[in-house]
Amino acid sequence: MTDPAPFESLACPAPLPQDRFIVLGHGSGGTLSHQLIQNIFLPAFSNPVLDALEDQATLDPARFGGGAGRIALTTDSFVVRPIFFPGGDIGSLAVHGTINDLAVGGAEPVCIAAAFILEEGLTLDDLRRICASVQAACREAGVTLVTGDTKVVDRGKGDQVYITTTGLGVIPAGRDVAISAGNARPGDRVLVSGTIGDHGIAVMSVREGISFGTPLRSDSAPLSGLTRAMLGVCPRIHCMRDPTRGGVSSALNEIAAASGVGMKLTESALPIRAEVRAACEMLGLDPLYVANEGKLIAIVPPVDAGAVLAAMRSHPLGRDAADVGDVVADHAGVVTLKSLIGGERVVAMLAGEQLPRIC
Amino acid sequence: MTDPAPFESLACPAPLPQDRFIVLGHGSGGTLSHQLIQNIFLPAFSNPVLDALEDQATLDPARFGGGAGRIALTTDSFVVRPIFFPGGDIGSLAVHGTINDLAVGGAEPVCIAAAFILEEGLTLDDLRRICASVQAACREAGVTLVTGDTKVVDRGKGDQVYITTTGLGVIPAGRDVAISAGNARPGDRVLVSGTIGDHGIAVMSVREGISFGTPLRSDSAPLSGLTRAMLGVCPRIHCMRDPTRGGVSSALNEIAAASGVGMKLTESALPIRAEVRAACEMLGLDPLYVANEGKLIAIVPPVDAGAVLAAMRSHPLGRDAADVGDVVADHAGVVTLKSLIGGERVVAMLAGEQLPRIC
Repeated sequence: MTDPAPFESLACPAPLPQDRFIVLGHGSGGTLSHQLIQNIFLPAFSNPVLDALEDQATLDPARFGGGAGRIALTTDSFVVRPIFFPGGDIGSLAVHGTINDLAVGGAEPVCIAAAFILEEGLTLDDLRRICASVQAACREAGVTLVTGDTKVVDRGKGDQVYITTTGLGVIPAGRDVAISAGNARPGDRVLVSGTIGDHGIAVMSVREGISFGTPLRSDSAPLSGLTRAMLGVCPRIHCMRDPTRGGVSSALNEIAAASGVGMKLTESALPIRAEVRAACEMLGLDPLYVANEGKLIAIVPPVDAGAVLAAMRSHPLGRDAADVGDVVADHAGVVTLKSLIGGERVVAMLAGEQLPRIC
Repeated sequence: MTDPAPFESLACPAPLPQDRFIVLGHGSGGTLSHQLIQNIFLPAFSNPVLDALEDQATLDPARFGGGAGRIALTTDSFVVRPIFFPGGDIGSLAVHGTINDLAVGGAEPVCIAAAFILEEGLTLDDLRRICASVQAACREAGVTLVTGDTKVVDRGKGDQVYITTTGLGVIPAGRDVAISAGNARPGDRVLVSGTIGDHGIAVMSVREGISFGTPLRSDSAPLSGLTRAMLGVCPRIHCMRDPTRGGVSSALNEIAAASGVGMKLTESALPIRAEVRAACEMLGLDPLYVANEGKLIAIVPPVDAGAVLAAMRSHPLGRDAADVGDVVADHAGVVTLKSLIGGERVVAMLAGEQLPRIC
C-alpha cells in the first residue's frame, strides 16, 4: 500500500482528493465513475469487447468451439488480506483462482468478468497496481477480461478492495472428459501437482511478520496449461480439484464423501517445503489444511497414473508432482494418513477456521 | 434484520453462536462452509447443475441455442443499504440487475452465478430470506442459479452482505439485433418504459425515515420479457439501457456521447410518480439522476416508435411507457430538457454522488 493514511484515520475522515483516492463518487455511475473507467480500467484491460462499454459483453460462439462443446462457468469472490503478498496480490489471485476452477473441470478458459468492491480511501495507485496484475495474469492464461463492474462502499464497510471474478470456458467437443468429485474408484491413485501449503503460509507470514531464510512465495498460478497436458495423456482422469481454502484435506474429504470411497495418504510422499513445514510447526498448523492457489489434486485410474505423473512433472507447474496415496474401498468417506513414524490417523475436514481471508 | 445485536456491539465482539449467525468459520472451506451450503444454499437453489457441487458449472450447449447464437456475459456487485427495502431486497435486486443488463443487450438470460461476501454477525435468518428472494427472482425470470461462492469477512470489514451476480445469456441465432450505445441516429425517438426514480427514492425513504401517504416501492423487476416483446415488433432498436446508478440522465448522456448525437427531452412527457416528485423536491434531488431497477430506455427509429411504444404499454412492466424526446444532430454529446415552464436546460452527467450504495 503506497499511502496507508486514509485507513488509519477512521475516527475523523477528512475529504479525500479524488485524483489520488477512491471516493464514494467513483461509484456513482456519473462523471467520476467514467473517469475511473477511462483512466484506470480501460488502459489496463483494453480489448474490443470491453472497449464497447456496453452493459454486457457479447461473445462470438466461435470462441466456444462453435457451440458443439460444453460451456463452463465459475465465480469466486476474493477477500484476501493483505491485498499484496509475496508471490502475488488480490488481482493475480482472483484471475488464477477462477482459471483454476475452470481448468480442474477440464475446461479451457476463454474470458473473465471482474467486479470490484472498493472501499473509500483506497489509493488509485494501489488500484492501478492491482489492475496491472489482473491483466498480466489474464495474458499469461490466454483469457480476456470482457466485462466488469465497480462499486464503492464507505470507509469501514469494506477492506480496500474485494474482487469477484467469473470465468467462462469451454470443454471442447472433442475432449471426452467426465471429471467429477463423485468419480473416484477404489484402486485409483491420488496425485498432487507440487508442494502444499505455500500460499497460506506466504500470506500468513506477512500477517504475522514471520521471515524465512529464503523468502516464501505464494504458489498462485494458472493451472490450465498443466491440466491440458494431463488430459492430453489421460482424458479419463476421474477427479480434479484445486485445494484452496481448507487445503488438500478438505478437497480430498469432499471427493471421498462424494464418491463413497476411502483414501489412504502417505505422509512421507507429501511434497512440503522445509520452510512451510517449519512455519506450520511454529504456528501450530497442519500443512494438509493450508490453502494452495497453484496446485491441484488428481484422482487417476492406476493404469494411467504413471503417464499422468510424468506429464505433470514435465510441466513447469508440476515439477514436484507426487503420488501421495490410494483410493480404497475401506472406510468410505474417510481420509487417513500413514504418518512418518508409522501410525495411521484420520485427516478430517477442517472444523473451524484456521486462516481466515486467505483468498 | 431480525437480530441487529451483533452489528451494534462492535466495540466488544463476543463469540457468536454459529447456528444463528455467520462466523468466520463459515468461510473456511471446511465443515462450517459445508453446513452453510447444505442447510441454506442448496435448499434455496437446488437444481441438477448446482447440486453437483463442482468448482464450476458445466452447461449443455443446447441451452445456448446449440451454439449458433452469440453468448452474452455481464457481472455486477450489489452493495445496497439497507439490504431490505420496500419492493425488494439485495437478493432480488442482484438478480434483476443482472437479468436487465442481459435483456437490454437483446439477450435471453439463461443462468446466473452468485458470489456472497458475508460479514461476520449476519443472521442466518437474514441470509435465508435473501436466498429465498434470489431464488424467487430467478424463477420469475426463468433463469437457473448454477454456481456460486461464499466468503466471510470480519466484523467491520463488510456490511452484512454483498452479492456479485454474473449472468450468462444468449442472443438467439435468428434474432438479428445490433443494439449499442453508439447506434443512436438523429430523428430517433427516446422511449422510457415507465415512471422514473422509484427505486432510488424507495431506498432513500427507508434510510431517511421518510414516509408517504401511499408506500413507495422499488421498481426492481426483470425486464427480459419486456425486451422480448419490444424486439418482437422491432428487431432494429438502436440502443437500450437500464438507467440504474446515475439515472436516466447518465444513461442518455452515455448514449449521446457514444453516438455523437444530441438529445432533446420534454419534461412534461417524463413519467414521474407524484410521491417521487415530492420526495425529490424535499431532498433536493432531480428524478433524472435517481436510480431505477425495473425501467429501460430505448432509442428507436422514428418509423418504429409507435409500434415499440404500443408493445411496451401492453406489457405489465411497460404500462406507463412514454415517448420522452428525440435524438438530434445539434449539440452532439449533450442532452437538453425543455422544462415545464418552457425554458431549455442542459442535463449533464451526474458529477458527484447523489445517493451512495443505491444498488
